[in-house]
Amino acid sequence: MFEQLGLIGCGLMGGSFALALKEAGLVKRVVGYSKSPSTTERARQMGVIDDIAPTAAMAASGADLVLLAMPVAATEATLQSIQQQVTHRTLVMDVGSTKTDVVHAARSALGNSFGSFVPAHPITGKEVAGVEHADVHLYRNALVVLTPTEHTLAPQLQHAEALWKALGCRVTRMAPETHDTAFAAVSHLPHLLAFAMMNGVLAQPEAAHFLSLAGPGFRDFTRIAGGEPRLWRDVLLANKKEVLAQSRHFQQALQQLEQAMLADDDQALQALLTHASDARLHWTMGQPPAARTPA
Amino acid sequence: MFEQLGLIGCGLMGGSFALALKEAGLVKRVVGYSKSPSTTERARQMGVIDDIAPTAAMAASGADLVLLAMPVAATEATLQSIQQQVTHRTLVMDVGSTKTDVVHAARSALGNSFGSFVPAHPITGKEVAGVEHADVHLYRNALVVLTPTEHTLAPQLQHAEALWKALGCRVTRMAPETHDTAFAAVSHLPHLLAFAMMNGVLAQPEAAHFLSLAGPGFRDFTRIAGGEPRLWRDVLLANKKEVLAQSRHFQQALQQLEQAMLADDDQALQALLTHASDARLHWTMGQPPAARTPA
Repeated sequence: MFEQLGLIGCGLMGGSFALALKEAGLVKRVVGYSKSPSTTERARQMGVIDDIAPTAAMAASGADLVLLAMPVAATEATLQSIQQQVTHRTLVMDVGSTKTDVVHAARSALGNSFGSFVPAHPITGKEVAGVEHADVHLYRNALVVLTPTEHTLAPQLQHAEALWKALGCRVTRMAPETHDTAFAAVSHLPHLLAFAMMNGVLAQPEAAHFLSLAGPGFRDFTRIAGGEPRLWRDVLLANKKEVLAQSRHFQQALQQLEQAMLADDDQALQALLTHASDARLHWTMGQPPAARTPA
Repeated sequence: MFEQLGLIGCGLMGGSFALALKEAGLVKRVVGYSKSPSTTERARQMGVIDDIAPTAAMAASGADLVLLAMPVAATEATLQSIQQQVTHRTLVMDVGSTKTDVVHAARSALGNSFGSFVPAHPITGKEVAGVEHADVHLYRNALVVLTPTEHTLAPQLQHAEALWKALGCRVTRMAPETHDTAFAAVSHLPHLLAFAMMNGVLAQPEAAHFLSLAGPGFRDFTRIAGGEPRLWRDVLLANKKEVLAQSRHFQQALQQLEQAMLADDDQALQALLTHASDARLHWTMGQPPAARTPA
């Protein structure tokens, strides 16, 4: 049980976290700060936060738990502004989609208090932003990746793990760099491709006609293209090197398929499609796939 | 009301069509043929078909409605084999994802009876094949594109349109070439990209670890990569030119995004992401988007 959550960023992710923590009876009081006063006002009206703080530092003041839930690019400045409030007994976490840059920012901003920070990435979200979409069940059954460093304090790490588990999450740990490579592959690249898919259609004069004919396959394939541009801009820039490396893997695979098409090589094409299809049909979210030999 | 449906191909699409027709009370008897005897046997046991025909011609014999529901590459040979059974009173349709090649095959195979053929593409499906997944509601609320030619007989076209509407579909007509361009953009290309996405991940030694961390975004983005390899091989080859043209549009859009990332140009990147995101958020399946100016 925490005495006070200092919530910095009261949007979808932060708001849902506060609601879930309250429902689980894990916090006595939530003090919220957001860049936009109308957001904090709305969050208070909705019961997401109990009190509004005029600054991030005021939200963190006296808090034994601080959650950063604003775009990742603002991490360093935010941590600098609350650095005075963080003690060796505070647990500070974020919910950002990239971790190497966040760890770097935290190390530089928090100095001696860096050990109180447990970098966290809950694999969940919605294509709609804002506290009005906050959902007490957003984190239920989600995977949460923690990327502690050699400086992370053991009690903080234990509390973090216990907290996410109490919200119904599965928790795993890995190095920040491992996290960023893996999520470049299975999250950041798919987002980049979905955005490119939309723009490739929109660049054509017949775009409106094409889109009026699109069905369920297109709907699901492009769902993530509705993601928040500012959030994804920050993710793509923060993890640029890994995302571009994954894009090269993708483009090689695309080229292989196109070459089989161009050559009218139906056997090669079918083999490539079967390789993809088999793997997808055997994949289940949240379960390590059975050991399979990559091509 | 049709006296007899000759169903050629008793898999997911054909089986679901027979079930829907029966439920709507639109057919008295269904005679089915499939390449695999175990499929027809299963279809009869499930009540999808009433009788098993040993050949496609026997299924079409005496039928006033014939549905072709096997991979598009088999269209010409199949139509040739039933050509003797098709009169100016028969309605013959297919459910293939490409139309220019199907129209070409039908013209060449049916000769004088070409007018009885109404090329049809219902925009629906599942990532699981086989009659065991046949679903009486598969076609409900689906869009069905008919691509008649100047030879298509008016009564056949009217019956076709009325039939699909009676199954709860929305029906639209367009030229086969228009169809193939549009569906290259919003269906065939997304499939190609989803297959490439899977293969790009699988080509890496860490594939299993990456996949074990993938969340809901990846799940929806790659859902169509589970599609049947043989069916998609045929579609990609039949509509190769249009699909490759759409892939070039996509690759240009991807390159634009990557250039903004490489240049650390956060404004350009955000503008590109916003363009895609706005269009996706304003898109609703089955509704023509509000007039918007493409970039």
